[in-house]
Amino acid sequence: MSFQDDSPPALENPMKIIPSIPTMQRLSRKWKSAGKKIGFVPTMGALHQGHLELVKTSRRENDVTVVSIFVNPTQFGPQEDFKKYPRTLDQDCSLLRREKVQAVFSPSDHEMYAADPNIKIHITGSLVSGLCAPFRPGHFDGVALVVVKLLNIVMPTHLYLGQKDAQQVAVLKRTISELNLEVVPVVCPIVRERDGLAMSSRNKLLSMEGRRTAPALFKALMEGKRVARTGEKNPGNVLAEAKKVLSKEKKIKLQYLEAVDPSTLTPVSKIKKGTMLALAAYLDNVRLIDNIVI
Amino acid sequence: MSFQDDSPPALENPMKIIPSIPTMQRLSRKWKSAGKKIGFVPTMGALHQGHLELVKTSRRENDVTVVSIFVNPTQFGPQEDFKKYPRTLDQDCSLLRREKVQAVFSPSDHEMYAADPNIKIHITGSLVSGLCAPFRPGHFDGVALVVVKLLNIVMPTHLYLGQKDAQQVAVLKRTISELNLEVVPVVCPIVRERDGLAMSSRNKLLSMEGRRTAPALFKALMEGKRVARTGEKNPGNVLAEAKKVLSKEKKIKLQYLEAVDPSTLTPVSKIKKGTMLALAAYLDNVRLIDNIVI
Repeated sequence: MSFQDDSPPALENPMKIIPSIPTMQRLSRKWKSAGKKIGFVPTMGALHQGHLELVKTSRRENDVTVVSIFVNPTQFGPQEDFKKYPRTLDQDCSLLRREKVQAVFSPSDHEMYAADPNIKIHITGSLVSGLCAPFRPGHFDGVALVVVKLLNIVMPTHLYLGQKDAQQVAVLKRTISELNLEVVPVVCPIVRERDGLAMSSRNKLLSMEGRRTAPALFKALMEGKRVARTGEKNPGNVLAEAKKVLSKEKKIKLQYLEAVDPSTLTPVSKIKKGTMLALAAYLDNVRLIDNIVI
Repeated sequence: MSFQDDSPPALENPMKIIPSIPTMQRLSRKWKSAGKKIGFVPTMGALHQGHLELVKTSRRENDVTVVSIFVNPTQFGPQEDFKKYPRTLDQDCSLLRREKVQAVFSPSDHEMYAADPNIKIHITGSLVSGLCAPFRPGHFDGVALVVVKLLNIVMPTHLYLGQKDAQQVAVLKRTISELNLEVVPVVCPIVRERDGLAMSSRNKLLSMEGRRTAPALFKALMEGKRVARTGEKNPGNVLAEAKKVLSKEKKIKLQYLEAVDPSTLTPVSKIKKGTMLALAAYLDNVRLIDNIVI
């Protein structure tokens, strides 16, 4: 006779790795029926400290945390880096296990998309008239589609997003609001390397020299912020000072540097508290983005 | 002292009429937490027996039933009948009260749509290459958008749709599947007047003579089906026989008559069991649709 047989299951279940949509939905439905707060961190894997801060915040604020790892083909343009985007699933799962995440949802492309998909989400207006959108046609439509799908699969109460992808944050907040999705978006600050470079999975693709040059992006944003804080209200003047920092770096090809309202993403005519300076630049053919709020 | 004070609330609560999105979401969330099956019938009001059959089916198959009444502006084209679409809210609510519906969700346009909406759903491919779609650009995008919003607000387990709007059924089934919405679509048969005319809120807009002529639409579909059942496999021949019935009616302006696969809506090259014959026609400037499955 053994008392062990009647003992309750261990409180900390091992992390589940779930490739199937119905399995994930069943698990989430069970949690929801039990009234649990579900935190969700959607990622494309290649996890770094920025992702892990989202995960830690979700772990603190919810009963269970689900992380998705899915390199979403619909958000890459035909000329973009879908194929060379870093994929490190085993390492990612080790990191997430250490954070005591309850489940990793890692579907195949085939599980997520029908062979001949017919339904798209389309973002219009000021949200996609500037910043990354003109350079990445269809990108935010693809992001919104995959996140709506993931929200319907994972059914979280809270969604954790990183401020680094500021345009993505604005688009997803608006998508959640306009489609009446019942989830609370939580935006977490940018996590930076010691030298100021915003953490990004794409940093791995930089050469040694590119990596040494990259912190200039943040320095430029800081310079813009410094100038604005001296009382300069004209966006043109603020951005010009920031650009001066970048012009010293031959390796950096600036794509845009704008001063916008962080929720509508409309360019501002006057810099004020809350205005966001945002940029994208190429370095070694690697496209990096960063932003700062004044 | 009264025993009444401790008595449980009446089992049959009065029907709630809810104009607010958060109120509807709270009520549905409460039902979902209690594990209730929620049936949902989205309508544009002006209810007729066709709608009521959807309601009765939902009442039989679920614990609670929600009916929405909302004349959705985003599914009408600029030249279409949004303004003259019949609106009979009080009468609709009386009918629904008699069916013991638990809640009617009847939001204002303002409650449903932001002043400057930025998020759209876009349907592509064979689903919108034929039938009504070429004549109503953007219509099915608008239908999908409002139904996705309504599903996120009402959070039903089962969605009741009428077969009369066959293209809408195909589009919504695909939207639910591709966006991973966790709701079961239930399609109910067309309800017809004694003379065969498919019930429609727009029938009210017909003149007396138009109303007398209208059953020819169904007669034409029946003739197509009859010819197909004699063994005629060629869609051109089947449709030609159906058109002969309509050519006798001067008041009827046929917009299309097609033989399609009912789930992809692709025109068939050979008539078989399950092929759908579908048409749209104008009568007194009123646009009517109907279909039949072979």
